[in-house]
Amino acid sequence: MQKTLIAQVVEDTLSTYEKDGGINHIEGPNLPSREGVTEIVTNLLHVIFPGYYEKQELSKADVTFYIWEKIVSVYHNLSREVFKSLRYDPKRKHLDDESLSQQSVEITINLLHSLPKVREKLSKDVEAAYEGDPAAKSFNEVILSYPGLEAVTIYRIAHELHIQQVPLIPRIMTEFAHTRTGIDIHPGAEIGEYFFIDHGTGVVIGETCQIGNNVRIYQGVTLGALSFKKDKDGKLVKGIKRHPTIEDNVIIYAGATILGGDTLIGKNSVVGGNVWLVESVPPNTTVTLKFPELTYSNQKT
Amino acid sequence: MQKTLIAQVVEDTLSTYEKDGGINHIEGPNLPSREGVTEIVTNLLHVIFPGYYEKQELSKADVTFYIWEKIVSVYHNLSREVFKSLRYDPKRKHLDDESLSQQSVEITINLLHSLPKVREKLSKDVEAAYEGDPAAKSFNEVILSYPGLEAVTIYRIAHELHIQQVPLIPRIMTEFAHTRTGIDIHPGAEIGEYFFIDHGTGVVIGETCQIGNNVRIYQGVTLGALSFKKDKDGKLVKGIKRHPTIEDNVIIYAGATILGGDTLIGKNSVVGGNVWLVESVPPNTTVTLKFPELTYSNQKT
Amino acid sequence: MQKTLIAQVVEDTLSTYEKDGGINHIEGPNLPSREGVTEIVTNLLHVIFPGYYEKQELSKADVTFYIWEKIVSVYHNLSREVFKSLRYDPKRKHLDDESLSQQSVEITINLLHSLPKVREKLSKDVEAAYEGDPAAKSFNEVILSYPGLEAVTIYRIAHELHIQQVPLIPRIMTEFAHTRTGIDIHPGAEIGEYFFIDHGTGVVIGETCQIGNNVRIYQGVTLGALSFKKDKDGKLVKGIKRHPTIEDNVIIYAGATILGGDTLIGKNSVVGGNVWLVESVPPNTTVTLKFPELTYSNQKT
Repeated sequence: MQKTLIAQVVEDTLSTYEKDGGINHIEGPNLPSREGVTEIVTNLLHVIFPGYYEKQELSKADVTFYIWEKIVSVYHNLSREVFKSLRYDPKRKHLDDESLSQQSVEITINLLHSLPKVREKLSKDVEAAYEGDPAAKSFNEVILSYPGLEAVTIYRIAHELHIQQVPLIPRIMTEFAHTRTGIDIHPGAEIGEYFFIDHGTGVVIGETCQIGNNVRIYQGVTLGALSFKKDKDGKLVKGIKRHPTIEDNVIIYAGATILGGDTLIGKNSVVGGNVWLVESVPPNTTVTLKFPELTYSNQKT
Repeated sequence: MQKTLIAQVVEDTLSTYEKDGGINHIEGPNLPSREGVTEIVTNLLHVIFPGYYEKQELSKADVTFYIWEKIVSVYHNLSREVFKSLRYDPKRKHLDDESLSQQSVEITINLLHSLPKVREKLSKDVEAAYEGDPAAKSFNEVILSYPGLEAVTIYRIAHELHIQQVPLIPRIMTEFAHTRTGIDIHPGAEIGEYFFIDHGTGVVIGETCQIGNNVRIYQGVTLGALSFKKDKDGKLVKGIKRHPTIEDNVIIYAGATILGGDTLIGKNSVVGGNVWLVESVPPNTTVTLKFPELTYSNQKT
Repeated sequence: MQKTLIAQVVEDTLSTYEKDGGINHIEGPNLPSREGVTEIVTNLLHVIFPGYYEKQELSKADVTFYIWEKIVSVYHNLSREVFKSLRYDPKRKHLDDESLSQQSVEITINLLHSLPKVREKLSKDVEAAYEGDPAAKSFNEVILSYPGLEAVTIYRIAHELHIQQVPLIPRIMTEFAHTRTGIDIHPGAEIGEYFFIDHGTGVVIGETCQIGNNVRIYQGVTLGALSFKKDKDGKLVKGIKRHPTIEDNVIIYAGATILGGDTLIGKNSVVGGNVWLVESVPPNTTVTLKFPELTYSNQKT
């Protein structure tokens, strides 16, 4: 009897696969695999911070072989996942599989060539974390345990694929970081050097943000969109600048919300905790909430 | 000597197992296993979004066999875990193991029968995400990378078990989603169609919330309890409506907090970022913080 | 050709390992491994809450052998990881490997000896969660599904290593909890008995916090630093009390921010949702935001 019941469930479920549009992916070419992308990111973290994740010691004699192996693995897996994702790019639908395959290899090679540059930026991010947090005891502690660094590292990798217009994979990468750290950075955001996010849970950095050098951000900060433009058919207009610009040397304390594509925080400014901003702030300015009026009452009366 | 030390530690630890009430679970019948529940949820995600998680392509020829296998696995594992959890239900303690076992099978079959309905709802949730976020490039991107969809999917499964009064498992499921997404939806909440949570970290939706159709929520929104009623012995009264009601077409922006079982947000209303509400809002109303007074000071003076 | 390209990438990457300071860890002695620390924490969770994580039933006959095996595993793995981390302690750099190895064993034994005390505290934390949350149906539910309890459990273990001045490992442990729960408790914080964090995503408890008994905290609460003292060279002064003191029986509602090392919340006080405090609150006091002025506008006009 159970077999009949299960047969019924299977049949009912299968029949919905024919009905409900948009949430089936059967007989289409494969989509990039979350598991595959996770493996790529993990290997790149090993290459970027050598000696930090390995259980065994990494000696100078081993390191060439070790890195070679990781890079070959990333090369094969990433070019395969990129190929899968290019087949879903509306902008590339005139291209045949051979051209897409060639592009996938080029994109992968470009990403790999960017690694020294990415490492250089991350070495500055590590420094910014150490300098910016009195609780940080060493660079090692930052690399081994700071979620902000992990999120920024994965964002910097994803951004390199984003600027090569790879669909899907950059977002899968930053969502992997979001899951692990609670920090949600869209791969499209542009972020300068010496960037530090402390604690980080709840941080949201939108797709069209521009962030300068030496910026520090705390948990719960949103750099978001103010409102969404709609076209004459009432559909959202996609692809315009919706998120703020943050200039050099700005500090944004916990829980602050800064919204809108025309909102600019001038250099050297400080945005206080919980401040809610939808307009620009000039350079060298500290903005704080006018101390909110509190009500005190004695519980026993 | 080390052996003696370890023996001492083991003995001391074991002796606390006899003393400290309430945090041992030895010689009781098994509790549902977090690992087991995770496996069930993962298999259901494969059934609900076929072709999105597989590394191999899923062809029409394979799909029947593939889904059959997943559903059989869920059938066996879920009926076992439900059985374990029913044995802990105070309301079912008069039932013998055979009755509980029968109920477990029924509950499992009911859950499986609900899958087409759940899929139909989720297909609307995917649409709501695509329509509601200018950064969303495709349905595929939503299904592969939106944490809000993942949390809502797992909530919709858990809710089907909650309404059949299964203890423990629904909460283990939504906490699995909470861990992965930072979104904490109690399985008891009632949520309508076309529901979209963007970014999502820090969202809390309480046990007795009622949410209509076409509602959109951003990161850090709390739909919570205002205060807890206590009985004459000073113990919390459990089981009354403590959380708000949100009607159709409401948007609630980031960081807003809405509290209380009598609080109702009328249809088509908009609650602005960081708004803190403990009373109802009429329909067709936009509620924003009166623009909070900010203090600007020039850092160099 | 691809081989040449990859060779180039490997060579370029390796050459940055010689250049960029501070983010390589090659030919240094090993750092503690995140994977290794995760395994230790997982085993300790099994010892602390016996019978809750096992798929098999745990009988009285099995439990001695089972706990023995877990404790032996923790003993070996933790003394190895502690040894790795002591080699990076500037305060211990005059010690040779034999002394460090001896210290590692002592520290590990001390941690194991503290388990009964830790269990006693956690049994009170479970009770506090059950008493403090109307949605909690049983102690089992709290242990199986409350992220607050998971974060506090791992904090209590990490704190035992912190007070023995072990570098790196305590932070790796609490960051493992942060990843899983969104709750960021520095292992240096001092937290009393009957502590309960509900929902928890976004909670930050800083290094020098002191928290009394019977304190309850909700999601998004920050107990943080107000500003950082710098020395005459402009470098951050590390190691002074920067975070608040919370006395017995205090409740702090969602999103409240309490900052500064001199800020003290007196016993029996209540801090309302979203309150932002940089000064002390006397005992028996309820502090709430003066109800923020809201602007209501009818959308259709």
